[in-house]
Amino acid sequence: MDVQETSDMNLMEKVVSLCKRRGFVFQSSEIYGGFNGFWDYGPYGSMLKKAVEQLWWNEMVETRNNVVGLDSTIICHPRTWKASGHVDRFGDIMCDCKKCKTRFRVDQMEDPTTCSNCGSKDLTPPREFNLMMKTYVGPVFDEEHIAYLRAESCQPIFLDFNLIRIATRQQLPFGIAQVGKAFRNEITPRMFTFRSREFTQMEMEFFCEDEGSLDWFEYWKEQRWKYYTEKLGFTEDEIQWAPHDKLAHYAKAAVDIEFKFPFGWGELEGIHHRGTWDLQQHQEFSGQNMEYLDPVTGKRFLPTVVETSVGCDRTILAILCHAYAEDKAPTQKEGMEDDIRIVLRFPPRIAPIQVGVLPLSKKLNDKAAEVQKKIQQFYRTELDVTGNIGKRYRRQDEIGTPFCVTVDFDTENDGAVTIRDRDTMAQERVAIDQLKQYLDNKIYGW
Amino acid sequence: MDVQETSDMNLMEKVVSLCKRRGFVFQSSEIYGGFNGFWDYGPYGSMLKKAVEQLWWNEMVETRNNVVGLDSTIICHPRTWKASGHVDRFGDIMCDCKKCKTRFRVDQMEDPTTCSNCGSKDLTPPREFNLMMKTYVGPVFDEEHIAYLRAESCQPIFLDFNLIRIATRQQLPFGIAQVGKAFRNEITPRMFTFRSREFTQMEMEFFCEDEGSLDWFEYWKEQRWKYYTEKLGFTEDEIQWAPHDKLAHYAKAAVDIEFKFPFGWGELEGIHHRGTWDLQQHQEFSGQNMEYLDPVTGKRFLPTVVETSVGCDRTILAILCHAYAEDKAPTQKEGMEDDIRIVLRFPPRIAPIQVGVLPLSKKLNDKAAEVQKKIQQFYRTELDVTGNIGKRYRRQDEIGTPFCVTVDFDTENDGAVTIRDRDTMAQERVAIDQLKQYLDNKIYGW
Repeated sequence: MDVQETSDMNLMEKVVSLCKRRGFVFQSSEIYGGFNGFWDYGPYGSMLKKAVEQLWWNEMVETRNNVVGLDSTIICHPRTWKASGHVDRFGDIMCDCKKCKTRFRVDQMEDPTTCSNCGSKDLTPPREFNLMMKTYVGPVFDEEHIAYLRAESCQPIFLDFNLIRIATRQQLPFGIAQVGKAFRNEITPRMFTFRSREFTQMEMEFFCEDEGSLDWFEYWKEQRWKYYTEKLGFTEDEIQWAPHDKLAHYAKAAVDIEFKFPFGWGELEGIHHRGTWDLQQHQEFSGQNMEYLDPVTGKRFLPTVVETSVGCDRTILAILCHAYAEDKAPTQKEGMEDDIRIVLRFPPRIAPIQVGVLPLSKKLNDKAAEVQKKIQQFYRTELDVTGNIGKRYRRQDEIGTPFCVTVDFDTENDGAVTIRDRDTMAQERVAIDQLKQYLDNKIYGW
Repeated sequence: MDVQETSDMNLMEKVVSLCKRRGFVFQSSEIYGGFNGFWDYGPYGSMLKKAVEQLWWNEMVETRNNVVGLDSTIICHPRTWKASGHVDRFGDIMCDCKKCKTRFRVDQMEDPTTCSNCGSKDLTPPREFNLMMKTYVGPVFDEEHIAYLRAESCQPIFLDFNLIRIATRQQLPFGIAQVGKAFRNEITPRMFTFRSREFTQMEMEFFCEDEGSLDWFEYWKEQRWKYYTEKLGFTEDEIQWAPHDKLAHYAKAAVDIEFKFPFGWGELEGIHHRGTWDLQQHQEFSGQNMEYLDPVTGKRFLPTVVETSVGCDRTILAILCHAYAEDKAPTQKEGMEDDIRIVLRFPPRIAPIQVGVLPLSKKLNDKAAEVQKKIQQFYRTELDVTGNIGKRYRRQDEIGTPFCVTVDFDTENDGAVTIRDRDTMAQERVAIDQLKQYLDNKIYGW
């Protein structure tokens, strides 16, 4: 297949434009001029996002007997963030240009003594800016009633560690995972959904004995790498390991998995050895014993934690960049030259629409709806009835639909439909009765 | 089956206690003494919640060609809440006891002139308390940078109406749906998860012409009632219609669906005719034209909206109350009397664990894991290996697992397992190869 080369930033523009045009992702509150750092997932985007979250959840929780789930509140007790260190230390160093008032993150400035906007050299001294978003819970808006929107989804996992351990009768080693929103008042949100102020994390904290914890670190590195290559189909050229230059004082190891975005390498996931730090801190600040009693040895100790922390929105952006392609597809009109088509090559499991159902004629709309009805409890489907069939294929290609089921005039007679594969464009005749089996096989390898 | 009668508040206590004991729902931040109005969903609870959200999403979006999805940010442009009226008017009237400082919502006071805590008659005059939770976005914490956590998930739907309509090429009538968190600084959170400060809504706004909008109102009433009776299995005794006493000035109709909780009837869902109010307000405050151009008649007009708005946490609480039962089950030991068992009769589609996999002996653990592996991409499973088989059945009954698959010493020879039904306790021998088909049939009627 003749894939066109696109320059990198060109690709980024194309992805952003496709996202808006087809309703994957667009600015929050656009009618009010937008809201910097906030993005909405539209119809196809919300389906893609749910599918990505579900794939991670299935991979990390549903298919593992030693990892359980959690869905905690975004706002939790404010002491949580005192204990975690976020209230005191979670910030960027920034400075302002005194002349034009532009604000900069010092670590992002090319020359920390000069304003890149107006060229002035009159800048304020660098100072810390806390990224936690705060609110008030209760009837009075004073210091005592400050609470925070969680800056990371993992802290509530530490708070609930003992409750969950007891309720599930899990013994070490085991993990607790959750998917959910987190908030950071970023000074310079940028690169589309890559760095935003409201985002979704998919995190898992794995509790184990300190001895052997580095083996678990290696285990999770391997698991997570395989997830990107096998489940999301990223190539070995597209992702890389990025070890941390500096380790936190309590950590024995830390590494990121980065994706080659059009704007450069960017972190998708961090795999961190966190030692006993978090449980230790919450034990100290809450006065509650967080130790684990080993039922065999009778030893009491604070478990060591290995964390895998994924940025969901970044993963989706990586999936979109990876999936985007332009190639040639035959027009449906005889004697015409091939179309250039835009196609999103999503893995079938996460495609927002997995099955497009296309009646060849308006007369077949009811029959097509009937076919759709049979499968729409199991797959994400769309009934596409307008325009010629070639146009509809292009439309489905553009949103990454892996399978198009065409209902034609033979369907009434032979009880079968034609299934067209997005990538090979090959067509196959399949009995309606066999459709679910066919799709389970294609999508899940069942 | 001999279902025990439990008095109503007794039932509530039993549900709350089971929720904590088995890790369905517990207080947020318990190690810090809890945080009033915030609740975490533990391992089984998070699975149940995801399943309830997915069932609604499948029912409202995936199986309808005229409803599309959205996943918008929790924080959106603050003018949104000016336009919606929430900044000016979204509050409860409350007063304080000057003596003991207890705060009351006036509409919840038995006698609005007397403190029910200390008996004092010296109360402050009633005044409004805004329920919106506010935060600051951007580098400065001043009036200009105030933003709000959304108080309802529907407003972003109105903001994005035109972007979504254009991207999806939908024509009236069509709906936009979303599931997501909302926040209200409730003065008196109460009744477990029934009224909390952070909660999940499942809302759908249906855009149509004004003429015929009352027919759509009736249509959605019928659809939503059927959802509760057919999909969630609520009986006609458990739910009721509650028409609103007073209508908003723009509304032509409004009705709630209430569930008979142990503490009394409580709202699960509101079905509201909202007229053109929301689009009108956002049009005025944004200066953007929100009108729809009818492609056939060429008429331009603001669409009328019919809304269905569900409280997800309340639905889950209703599901738990409905599902809870105590009955008798045979012990697995000969000559012994029947056990009293606690059982959660969840519909199989939403049960947190759909299939328990139970090896009859430790020697069969690997074989059982193999069986589990075959189905865990499709169903929520749990491998339960400890304790005698009767104990394990009780454990699975208590978390509402509809099917227990027992792997025994014959499995190696006949390639089959025994499936035990939670409700009838009948057992059936099923070939492992047929397991998925068997479960698809039982769970989805496929």
